[in-house]
Amino acid sequence: MSDAREGRPRAVARLISLVEDGHPALRELMAALAPHTGRAHVVGITGSPGVGKSTTTNALVTAYRARGSRVGVLAVDPSSPFSGGALLGDRIRMSEHAADPGVFIRSMASRGHLGGLSWAAPQAVRVLDAAGCDVVLLETVGVGQSEVEVASTADTTVVLLAPGMGDGVQAAKAGLLEVADVLVVNKADREGADRTVRDLRHAVSLADRAEPDAWRPPVLRTEALTGSGVDEVVAALDAHRARLGADGLRARRTRRAAREVEALAVEALRRRLGGVAGARLEALAADVAAGRLDPYAAADALMEEPS
Amino acid sequence: MSDAREGRPRAVARLISLVEDGHPALRELMAALAPHTGRAHVVGITGSPGVGKSTTTNALVTAYRARGSRVGVLAVDPSSPFSGGALLGDRIRMSEHAADPGVFIRSMASRGHLGGLSWAAPQAVRVLDAAGCDVVLLETVGVGQSEVEVASTADTTVVLLAPGMGDGVQAAKAGLLEVADVLVVNKADREGADRTVRDLRHAVSLADRAEPDAWRPPVLRTEALTGSGVDEVVAALDAHRARLGADGLRARRTRRAAREVEALAVEALRRRLGGVAGARLEALAADVAAGRLDPYAAADALMEEPS
Repeated sequence: MSDAREGRPRAVARLISLVEDGHPALRELMAALAPHTGRAHVVGITGSPGVGKSTTTNALVTAYRARGSRVGVLAVDPSSPFSGGALLGDRIRMSEHAADPGVFIRSMASRGHLGGLSWAAPQAVRVLDAAGCDVVLLETVGVGQSEVEVASTADTTVVLLAPGMGDGVQAAKAGLLEVADVLVVNKADREGADRTVRDLRHAVSLADRAEPDAWRPPVLRTEALTGSGVDEVVAALDAHRARLGADGLRARRTRRAAREVEALAVEALRRRLGGVAGARLEALAADVAAGRLDPYAAADALMEEPS
Repeated sequence: MSDAREGRPRAVARLISLVEDGHPALRELMAALAPHTGRAHVVGITGSPGVGKSTTTNALVTAYRARGSRVGVLAVDPSSPFSGGALLGDRIRMSEHAADPGVFIRSMASRGHLGGLSWAAPQAVRVLDAAGCDVVLLETVGVGQSEVEVASTADTTVVLLAPGMGDGVQAAKAGLLEVADVLVVNKADREGADRTVRDLRHAVSLADRAEPDAWRPPVLRTEALTGSGVDEVVAALDAHRARLGADGLRARRTRRAAREVEALAVEALRRRLGGVAGARLEALAADVAAGRLDPYAAADALMEEPS
């Protein structure tokens, strides 16, 4: 663990694997890491498939590295419960930053049991934070209940859009505008970029009126492939963190920790159900499937089981 | 409730609203409905954004209506926790089937608290089933842990793809191939459709070898906008249900009920945490955020609280 605290890549990778596996040693690990966390700026990056999240993340890493920051990247991708994160290996190898000792890149599968993302992602962030990262970029796909939730509990949340992908309405439907601290229109050289930027600024200004003093999410343009506009995004991330201040940061992190603790408590319950009560759940579910029992009565019966 | 059992659209809509609101009367409602469920063929339809899920669902409704089946549609869309399902109203109004008394269409928001989809969607299906629907089409976006899980616990799961959208690799990454009972390449008039079909058939044949007697998901082509190929999809859905037989159907429904019961048990725990222990969770989370406590110790402390 001291290797990980010194930022040795293999040690960090091993610790994140423990998180993914839900290893019994996690409990001790998290207890040991706790005092060493809280330094990194945790930046959530989310958006629909195809807007260029990975390219943008890559460009942000370049920008942060240029000023000497150590960067952790945690990419939570939809992935199979069977194939796990294996298919994602390519992506890691492909990254231009793979050989840079000041950068840790890790992909995590988002599939698996219900809510797993809600406790695993924050713990992986914790490992990268304790390993000495100045910035942790947490990239999730902006579709899906759990995935958006994870990105939205970062210190600062970037929502990425691209021109001609349904624009603002689509993002609004997905609940993305409400969680954005910084809005970025990527692929800004494409047709329709002006309109997307205008629509988003309009949407932001409407939301503004309710709380005049609130942070107003800037709407920026990037071409992540060339790096154009990326420095401005980094400046906006810095500005947002500065604006949060110590109190704002504490509030965000408390909210994030509350979600994590709640998810761990739920996980503990789940384990209890899967263990002693596993056969009982199966029997109750068969009754529900046959219409002999309703699901609430079954849940009650399950909760009343001695554990 | 007897109005709903007779399939009166407003009564059904009201009952589904109770589900969405997590209304206290749900418990009695589900108990009353339990004996009247189990008749409908529950078909999950999932795929990435842009493959044409809504158009395909619409075309399937037309095909089922042509043979006189009563059809329920439950569309679970990513939507804001703030704007709720409001933005989705357009979609209902736009449907050509909105005025048909043999069709119920309902959109549900997928956002909200963790895991909400896991208990709410099955309950809404239960309402449509008890209301006398012969088929319930459950449409979810094929990105995101909770959303795919919901579609994959249907009696029969259709995975929709479109040419040139990352094809098989993307679907494999999203865990979609493993959950598919029927694979449909929509927009089959587009360039690359042949290749997508070929790739998918290859992927299916590889998976085949492990269990030679298993159902082999057919790979079909549709142009949902014109309805081309949709009858073949309906035939494949019928074939899959026939192949499942009474035992297979019971196994699927037991699995679905197990997820639902588990989610309700977790929800009961969550309510307990949010109630009496809400302030305690906040205090523990603040300690975790400050690095004074690790999240496991906090979860333990939370679970030990008298409730």
